Amino acid sequence: MAKPYCLCSAQDELYQVPANFVKEIEKHFSIVWIEEFNSNSEVYSDKIVAIFSIHQQPKITKELIDRLPKLKIVAVAAAGYNHIDVQMVRSYGVKVSNAPKVLDETVADLAVALILAAGRNLINGVKLAMSPSTTFFPKNDVAKGVFGTTLGIVGMGGIGYKVAFRAKAFNMKVLYNNRSRRSVKDEEQVGATYFSSLNEMLPLCDYVLVAVNVTPETRKIMGWKQFELMKTSATLLNVSRGVTVDQEALVKALNCGEIHSAALDVTDPEPLPRNHPLLTMNNVIISPHCGSATEMARLAMIGKAVENAVAAVEGTPLPSEVCD
Amino acid sequence: MAKPYCLCSAQDELYQVPANFVKEIEKHFSIVWIEEFNSNSEVYSDKIVAIFSIHQQPKITKELIDRLPKLKIVAVAAAGYNHIDVQMVRSYGVKVSNAPKVLDETVADLAVALILAAGRNLINGVKLAMSPSTTFFPKNDVAKGVFGTTLGIVGMGGIGYKVAFRAKAFNMKVLYNNRSRRSVKDEEQVGATYFSSLNEMLPLCDYVLVAVNVTPETRKIMGWKQFELMKTSATLLNVSRGVTVDQEALVKALNCGEIHSAALDVTDPEPLPRNHPLLTMNNVIISPHCGSATEMARLAMIGKAVENAVAAVEGTPLPSEVCD
Repeated sequence: MAKPYCLCSAQDELYQVPANFVKEIEKHFSIVWIEEFNSNSEVYSDKIVAIFSIHQQPKITKELIDRLPKLKIVAVAAAGYNHIDVQMVRSYGVKVSNAPKVLDETVADLAVALILAAGRNLINGVKLAMSPSTTFFPKNDVAKGVFGTTLGIVGMGGIGYKVAFRAKAFNMKVLYNNRSRRSVKDEEQVGATYFSSLNEMLPLCDYVLVAVNVTPETRKIMGWKQFELMKTSATLLNVSRGVTVDQEALVKALNCGEIHSAALDVTDPEPLPRNHPLLTMNNVIISPHCGSATEMARLAMIGKAVENAVAAVEGTPLPSEVCD
Repeated sequence: MAKPYCLCSAQDELYQVPANFVKEIEKHFSIVWIEEFNSNSEVYSDKIVAIFSIHQQPKITKELIDRLPKLKIVAVAAAGYNHIDVQMVRSYGVKVSNAPKVLDETVADLAVALILAAGRNLINGVKLAMSPSTTFFPKNDVAKGVFGTTLGIVGMGGIGYKVAFRAKAFNMKVLYNNRSRRSVKDEEQVGATYFSSLNEMLPLCDYVLVAVNVTPETRKIMGWKQFELMKTSATLLNVSRGVTVDQEALVKALNCGEIHSAALDVTDPEPLPRNHPLLTMNNVIISPHCGSATEMARLAMIGKAVENAVAAVEGTPLPSEVCD
């Protein structure tokens, strides 16, 4: 039987769908690239049943959906889907899926990498050790350290929980704030303590990690008031999405010493405009939204997207449907 | 009763003994600074009973020991003591101590920081994200990753063991090579597998961490032959001392792709000469020998040195005497 058709975007080098993704998709679908579709839409309009959203491409507009009467699913190969107007898509009877969980371990690794890099002043240390002008290492420079400190996790979903598990191995005291409390068994396994109030948790933390999903409630969940509540020795970390942090307030908090430092895998926008004040602060680390950037995680993400698309075509329940 | 006298060095800004160390020492000793001693040695020669070796200062020479007939101990405020001629000092009936164990957790944190930084390509990522010339983030760059990979630990002492404990939380498979095998209970607690042969362990590892003490046997324990045995995708890490790695062989191994990358907190010498090839390789991370560089660890190290010195003065067994 011929494979069903799906739409993918390969607009330019930057957004190119990698070869191992293509291989994964082609196990179950024939790929129509967006350029080909735009040139010959009359050939493909009635055939395409799935769109794969990879690196947030192609843009999912009303105009695009209007041209695809047989479309059954927009399958996002990522955990975050705030680039999709889910309600609009679903109003056509088209399903939306994402690829959560499969990247949790990989993002948790990166979160701990950022905690350690910030807590041990690693970026500045490497700069010093490798700079052409260095002639000696100051003997008395010390960093705040990580072992035995307190970590507050904002958003105890899959990623947050796996960070907590790792943090325990560094003898960190783990606190967490979440919409709902985890089971006592879950808490005991990682030694985590629940705070129903974010603002009551913040003053106790040496590190505050944002790992929430983006919802109307979590936009700018970390703002000026929260930075004021944090210790002046505390570090803010974000592996969620840039919009969860009020960046203007963060700049101010770092500038006036309300908090000690920040390490961000995500910003708003990405990359930041090159004149952004965060880029030149020596107590700030920014990584290029690489939380899931390992081959293992990325393959698992496209695998999950394909699973969802196959289920939509076959009319069986999706492994990870998105409804909100 | 007057406090006994000790000798410390505060030669210049670089080697200055930090104020919190001075406070710790002065709880039990009156400090004679080396400059004062050199100017008025007739006043102090018969009084000084201890030397604190801090940041490898003052230099412990035969000439210095000859001038201190009442000396009972050279107390090193560090784990490593390869800057001291222990045999020479002990030939005077003077004891030597170091400060092991108290820095193990802190060095283990740094070792994991290096594993994660190398495994997630964090240093290059941060450079990209923060560079003035960056206009976009390549979407398909992926790093080798850490979760679920295999770590080989060369030297399973206090530090190695604490790294193994942390590595378990990243679901790493832990192998180790050591002069002697750990107890089955020790092994089970961190899920580590013993290899009596280093060369049999190396081909199995994604990450190889050197955490040995420096002895004649461990000098250049990682040489060309070892790099040949490692996977071409493997990363070498060193938190021990620079002399344990054959640096010329390392440069060659990195240049010709025998191994993937290296992350070194220690080199020989420190800092490396600025024209050293390791400094310009983009698959190399060098940090400024900051394994123990947290306030907590440093205070514990001077605390341990003071404990040893007090014991030597009182004639009780030293908590951590060095005999070899």
